[in-house]
Amino acid sequence: MRVKIVLAYDGTSFLGSQKQKETSNTIFGIFESILSQLGIQQNVVASGRTDKGVHASYQVCHIDLPPFWMDIKKLQYVLNKMLPQSIFVKKIQKVSSDFHARYDATSRVYRYIIKEGQRDPFLNRFVTFVDGIDIQKISQNIKLFMGEHDFAYFMKNGSDVKSTIRVISKTFVYQHKGNIILYFEANGFLRSQIRLMVGALLQLNAFEIQQQLSLEKKI
Amino acid sequence: MRVKIVLAYDGTSFLGSQKQKETSNTIFGIFESILSQLGIQQNVVASGRTDKGVHASYQVCHIDLPPFWMDIKKLQYVLNKMLPQSIFVKKIQKVSSDFHARYDATSRVYRYIIKEGQRDPFLNRFVTFVDGIDIQKISQNIKLFMGEHDFAYFMKNGSDVKSTIRVISKTFVYQHKGNIILYFEANGFLRSQIRLMVGALLQLNAFEIQQQLSLEKKI
Repeated sequence: MRVKIVLAYDGTSFLGSQKQKETSNTIFGIFESILSQLGIQQNVVASGRTDKGVHASYQVCHIDLPPFWMDIKKLQYVLNKMLPQSIFVKKIQKVSSDFHARYDATSRVYRYIIKEGQRDPFLNRFVTFVDGIDIQKISQNIKLFMGEHDFAYFMKNGSDVKSTIRVISKTFVYQHKGNIILYFEANGFLRSQIRLMVGALLQLNAFEIQQQLSLEKKI
Repeated sequence: MRVKIVLAYDGTSFLGSQKQKETSNTIFGIFESILSQLGIQQNVVASGRTDKGVHASYQVCHIDLPPFWMDIKKLQYVLNKMLPQSIFVKKIQKVSSDFHARYDATSRVYRYIIKEGQRDPFLNRFVTFVDGIDIQKISQNIKLFMGEHDFAYFMKNGSDVKSTIRVISKTFVYQHKGNIILYFEANGFLRSQIRLMVGALLQLNAFEIQQQLSLEKKI
């Protein structure tokens, strides 16, 4: 039986979401090792990868359950007892056998939270404190990323991808409870792309961002 | 020049506040090592100790600054640049040379936050998720701790203290943004006392708590 699993996690103390040979300290490294303790030997397929230190509020995955795990309410309960406090199973739901968490995802959404003023030791895992935020400039310039671009200059070096072209379908800035939230929606993102785009929005002007998007000048 | 320093910290990844010989991973172990990098070789005197995993929103301390550190605004700025993100200097303020963070403290306040329902991976460092909270019972029973008691049964074993008698001057329960907050104010607390009192409030009835406070029966 194929099930869709929705996870939320605080990524602070993990080395990214994807399973790695070198370390077990990744979201899916831990998740799969706990599944295997329950007799579920499966590679979890996730909608996308998150980088080191990145959190997820709604990461969609799928696995095929062995026949002895029919009680998905109980499975959710047991998983949440066994998982570290920083990883939480929000939902497990039966889906059709051709559901695919990665290929069926129509878009991925990232939110990057920044805030003016003194840093707060209780928020530092979720919020980047920045001085002198020009919210109007950021709201305008974030639109430069819209559409299809070669994001080669917005990718961490050493990434191994077939193409650095991505299509960003929605970007905007909004305020919520004193935070400034930068919203990005795309078919997919390159490694560190969000962080590098936010860095550009904070430090560069429109002309410099356009130069980078047209691969003219890497700053 | 003596200064009062107010710290806030997320205690999650530290082994308590107090400096230890065995590890440098404590709040004041780290704080003093950074002070010493700035030429300030001082034992920081704090108003009180916090246990492993306990946070502080307003920990008052004092030190005596050497004459070359007169610019306390700059000192605060430099400290906040050097400290880990989880420790923050809220305030540095000149005080009279007889000010003492520990002896001049008239009371210490702790808040313990509990919440009904599914655990939240983004709040687990600050909130304990509990099912079936009887807020009325807790509001009544928290008053049992008021006044002077021998809290020997509300102390972690192996603690080395002269007396286990403490005077609790204020306790109450209130709700804030969906959280239930247990408030305790006292002249001082024993090691793990707050955690053990909260455990008692969640699991015991009034009679059982009174038994423990009168040292009749340890549960």
